[in-house]
Amino acid sequence: MPDEFRRFVIGLIFVLANAFSASAFADEGMWLFNALPLKQLKEKYQVEPTPQWLEHLQKATVRFNSGGSGSFVSANGLVITNHHVGADCLQKFGDEQHNYLRDGFYAKTQADEKKCVDLELNVLISIEDVTARVNSAVKPGMSSDAAAGARRNAIAQIEEESKEKTRLRSDVVTLYQGGTYHLYRYKRYDDVRLVFAPEQQMAFFGGDPDNFEYPRYDLDICLFRVYENGRPAKIDNFLKFNPRGPNDGELTFVSGSPGKTDRQLTLDELADMRDRYLPYVLRMFNRREVLEMSYSARSFENARKARDDLFGDQNNRKRYDGYLAGLLDPQTWSALQTREQRLRDAIARDPKFKSAISAYDRIKDALTEIAKNAPLYNYLEQERPITIGYRGPRALSGNLFKYARLLMRAVDERAKPNGERIPQFRDSARESLELDLFSTEPIYDDYEILRLTDSLTDFASQFGADNPLVQKILAGKSPHARAVDLVTRTKLKDVAVRKELYAKDAAALQAAHDPMIDLARMIDGPAREARKIYDAQEEIKKQAYSEIAKARFAIEGASNYPDATFTLRLSYGTVRGYEQDGKQIPAFTDFAGLYQRFTEHDNKPPFDLPQRWIDKKANLNLATKFNFVSDADIIGGNSGSPVVNKANEFVGIIFDGNIQSLVLDCIYTDKQARAVSVDSAAIIEALRNVYEARPLVDELLSAK
Amino acid sequence: MPDEFRRFVIGLIFVLANAFSASAFADEGMWLFNALPLKQLKEKYQVEPTPQWLEHLQKATVRFNSGGSGSFVSANGLVITNHHVGADCLQKFGDEQHNYLRDGFYAKTQADEKKCVDLELNVLISIEDVTARVNSAVKPGMSSDAAAGARRNAIAQIEEESKEKTRLRSDVVTLYQGGTYHLYRYKRYDDVRLVFAPEQQMAFFGGDPDNFEYPRYDLDICLFRVYENGRPAKIDNFLKFNPRGPNDGELTFVSGSPGKTDRQLTLDELADMRDRYLPYVLRMFNRREVLEMSYSARSFENARKARDDLFGDQNNRKRYDGYLAGLLDPQTWSALQTREQRLRDAIARDPKFKSAISAYDRIKDALTEIAKNAPLYNYLEQERPITIGYRGPRALSGNLFKYARLLMRAVDERAKPNGERIPQFRDSARESLELDLFSTEPIYDDYEILRLTDSLTDFASQFGADNPLVQKILAGKSPHARAVDLVTRTKLKDVAVRKELYAKDAAALQAAHDPMIDLARMIDGPAREARKIYDAQEEIKKQAYSEIAKARFAIEGASNYPDATFTLRLSYGTVRGYEQDGKQIPAFTDFAGLYQRFTEHDNKPPFDLPQRWIDKKANLNLATKFNFVSDADIIGGNSGSPVVNKANEFVGIIFDGNIQSLVLDCIYTDKQARAVSVDSAAIIEALRNVYEARPLVDELLSAK
Repeated sequence: MPDEFRRFVIGLIFVLANAFSASAFADEGMWLFNALPLKQLKEKYQVEPTPQWLEHLQKATVRFNSGGSGSFVSANGLVITNHHVGADCLQKFGDEQHNYLRDGFYAKTQADEKKCVDLELNVLISIEDVTARVNSAVKPGMSSDAAAGARRNAIAQIEEESKEKTRLRSDVVTLYQGGTYHLYRYKRYDDVRLVFAPEQQMAFFGGDPDNFEYPRYDLDICLFRVYENGRPAKIDNFLKFNPRGPNDGELTFVSGSPGKTDRQLTLDELADMRDRYLPYVLRMFNRREVLEMSYSARSFENARKARDDLFGDQNNRKRYDGYLAGLLDPQTWSALQTREQRLRDAIARDPKFKSAISAYDRIKDALTEIAKNAPLYNYLEQERPITIGYRGPRALSGNLFKYARLLMRAVDERAKPNGERIPQFRDSARESLELDLFSTEPIYDDYEILRLTDSLTDFASQFGADNPLVQKILAGKSPHARAVDLVTRTKLKDVAVRKELYAKDAAALQAAHDPMIDLARMIDGPAREARKIYDAQEEIKKQAYSEIAKARFAIEGASNYPDATFTLRLSYGTVRGYEQDGKQIPAFTDFAGLYQRFTEHDNKPPFDLPQRWIDKKANLNLATKFNFVSDADIIGGNSGSPVVNKANEFVGIIFDGNIQSLVLDCIYTDKQARAVSVDSAAIIEALRNVYEARPLVDELLSAK
Repeated sequence: MPDEFRRFVIGLIFVLANAFSASAFADEGMWLFNALPLKQLKEKYQVEPTPQWLEHLQKATVRFNSGGSGSFVSANGLVITNHHVGADCLQKFGDEQHNYLRDGFYAKTQADEKKCVDLELNVLISIEDVTARVNSAVKPGMSSDAAAGARRNAIAQIEEESKEKTRLRSDVVTLYQGGTYHLYRYKRYDDVRLVFAPEQQMAFFGGDPDNFEYPRYDLDICLFRVYENGRPAKIDNFLKFNPRGPNDGELTFVSGSPGKTDRQLTLDELADMRDRYLPYVLRMFNRREVLEMSYSARSFENARKARDDLFGDQNNRKRYDGYLAGLLDPQTWSALQTREQRLRDAIARDPKFKSAISAYDRIKDALTEIAKNAPLYNYLEQERPITIGYRGPRALSGNLFKYARLLMRAVDERAKPNGERIPQFRDSARESLELDLFSTEPIYDDYEILRLTDSLTDFASQFGADNPLVQKILAGKSPHARAVDLVTRTKLKDVAVRKELYAKDAAALQAAHDPMIDLARMIDGPAREARKIYDAQEEIKKQAYSEIAKARFAIEGASNYPDATFTLRLSYGTVRGYEQDGKQIPAFTDFAGLYQRFTEHDNKPPFDLPQRWIDKKANLNLATKFNFVSDADIIGGNSGSPVVNKANEFVGIIFDGNIQSLVLDCIYTDKQARAVSVDSAAIIEALRNVYEARPLVDELLSAK
């Protein structure tokens, strides 16, 4: 790694801290790489990253399409991320004989590295502000529908032009709720191979009970290698691996793609979230968790098949439970009220922001319309990811229905001009769509039937069994009988058939009469109707938020950061513990603590250890730091983010936030909220003395 | 046991089988002991029980107030029931050192028998028809409110008179939806001591995955002894224990208290059940199951505390899932439509039933009103047991809130005339109420806080955090902070305090200002309002059902049986297997099958065996029959029911129905639906060769 990238220039700039920040000295913010809080960093830490330092970190950071972050840690394409980010891939190439998720994986040679079926990694190459061009497409007097269409068109055209010109994946990113639009260009890697994964019980030791808790003892890591033209990719910008981890009290940086925050939302929208939306998603996750738990309990093989889904659903359930608890806390609510009131007061002081005041009411009215439409929209459409990596209920559950709907819509949407398509089917997203659609992920009939039966039942419960759409969908059968019929008769299990159908036009696809596609078509009319209503209201909201955002810019300048949008951000924070129920929780845990917890729980799941860890205990330095917490501002999607020190060296990897951090969705606090990381020291100690993966250790440490 | 009770008189009576039965020869019906289908029994099986045979079985059968059935099996008060019926009691006298639920229990001597804290057993002594007296209280022209009040008054008076005269627990039982009222007099036993229980993993081997499934391998038994005046009660009517079990194809009888069936419900009410009520309860059970599972996963001690609740919630979730699946099956629905249409046609043919036709519409209208009131009623009140043994959400969860509400209402209701009180607080129910209220069941602060936090959160989600009632209940705190405050400050953990408060009048109770009672009072106004609306509509339904029931009587005569009401019934059925997915499921399992299933699942929970069962395998005759199925008509509440042969000998004990039997709630079918029992042979073999409980075996087998 070239030296200049690791230098810090101590600057002299000093500006007023953001007036709306809870504390002027808090380590708050998920900052854009092209708009960093240089003054805060300077003021509090006397450091200022150089452009080279930043470019190096930017290009060493990768984004996983499965939802998560990671970083290059060798010149030969080695990428480190969390085990739970790689879990989807691990699960997909398992079978009845091989359970890589449970047993772990290590490729001793490059020839043993296993190619993932549908993983795509993106590296951000450049950022360009295209706000003016996107906004110029909207003409005065346009209806909200027309405005949305015009903006979509402009975005599609910018993406297409850029793609054509640069061959890079080109996404126009909406920031500040439409306040600005940036064109992000990514280098794509779609030949991604698994190098190393520990056993899931090491990555997720303590399971659901310890998830979002601290102290923790998890080796939540996974190593991949990206290939180009069948050979390991040559990487210029990778992070030097520091095997000593950070110190207590040290400043660290976190680079990654936080998924989604709601920090600019109005109080009305947060109240809607608290009283309507979160209760709805929690009901859904409870239902799915119970279904998957009861299926998993029937046999080891079932547990293997459902493990990844179950992990995701439990994780989301706990996460949204914590978020809801935060919103129901009067102290948090009062801080949110203060935040909004200050902004509203500032807006009210200046007559030129007059329309921004009414924007709050327009948002409220749009929320009312969205709530009215929610039963239909939530059940028939909902592609908005409610959490990163979670691909939504997409009307009915199961991979086969997902394929059917993607195929049908891909063919229908292809016939439209690019700008008028549903975003998922624009030309710029084609490669990702095809990767998903032609995945060789195994399909399990029994598990498909289980999930489809459950979602058909849920559908009937939502609308009533006498509802004409429900009757049409069930086709005179019970949910179970209908699911059995659909799953056994569809041809979509076969990738070749999916490819063949994808190539057809709408008429030919319809004529093929695959029963699952016929089912998707039954739902499509009302689903698109619900989407239309939703999109129209979202457009109203978008415009209203944009007005508020404009007013905020005028007041705050560029001193604030935009909400997370699963695009690259830089956070920073101090490694430090916190107080809970009158007790001081230290910043670090160590291997000794892991074995102690294992003993206390009598080696019973989810506190059991893989046999290897029992056998190799004597080899380990038990004082090795294992996990640590910092007050960096992170959120889901930051999973796998590298934690670097001032020298831009890898010292840890983010894998969780504690329960008090779940409220970070809507407001930053550093009182108890902490980001949880695996220490780089633990990674080296485990790879060397438990997994005996010497070549891997050498590759990580020989980095120059 | 006197000989005449065991004799069968073969009679010669022959009448037409019930015209509405699915099959004239099906073993359908949960019959009243005073109105048996003697002709069907005679016709199909050439048997007819004598009055003595019936009286013996009636008085040998006991009902558990915790929800379940059982029977006397020795002259010294020995009672056998299911482990899952006794589980509540087992759990209540466990502590951190003693986990009787997990480890089992065996009192080698009578001195070791452990008294249950709040168990009450009832034995039905006599039945008297009081229909005329109850109905005479309703005068023409009375409003539905007034009619309900008049009927309640009459019932309370009958119960009080009977109680005074006989000293027996006296309940007026509503049958045929108000078609008839019977006065049931019970002998009460409230000194009930635990004698024997196997480990829960033996009683519930296969856990949730095997629950409601077949083949099964469960020793779901538990033995108690009733005491009077500190000594084992002398029992005249007990069942002779036959250690050989029944044969394949043999006729058997089941005596017990099925909880609740919905076989007379109109299609409109079943549609309401299918589309509104079951989805609602399933959401509730999913929520509770996830809460209890995640709590249990944190430590062994947590798992012990929550085990009984978790068992109940999983059991109910699976049960209502199965019931909903049945209602969503078009074949079942069509059978229900046919059943209703036949009755409606028969009613329509006779002008004197004119008002019964409109009764269907009145029920429909009442259902609409109930549905409108449901959000409030379900969250604030709901004492209607949705399943036997399940004591409802009672507004907020946890034992402390339950005590608070019972205390407040007991004091308030006591000030009213007996007939005007909520049934739970009438004089006739006083002993049961006090048993519940003064239970010495342990209270766990952390578990109370967990459940109260969850239900306060659910409450806020249901009505919105800005709802005035929600704000009042939360008192400016987060759900967690409020729960911590309530649980740590209330004095209701102390039985002595509960007794002291119970003795106060309303003003003094209010002045005591226990925070949990203050909370209960905040809810009480709107809760009673919701109850009033609900009760009024239920009264309209009751009158309408009564008209339909009257018409049905006029058409059918006494040939049909009433819906289950947790009162004593006799069912009968043949021991026989069934076909499923093209495969024949045999009627019996054996111990060999148990060990095979254990091996297949690698001794992993819930297919693990207690160490004792592994050690003693060689002692066992592996060919011993373990569980068996019959087509007897049973439902929840029949748990623990004795299965007897023609000689009135105990040959098994009901503990479950298979998944196909869950639709029996609303319609009988013998195609695949089966009742599942433990074979008496397995009980003796296990007691003798695994538990080495020789005195107990001797007591069971020495019965004369």
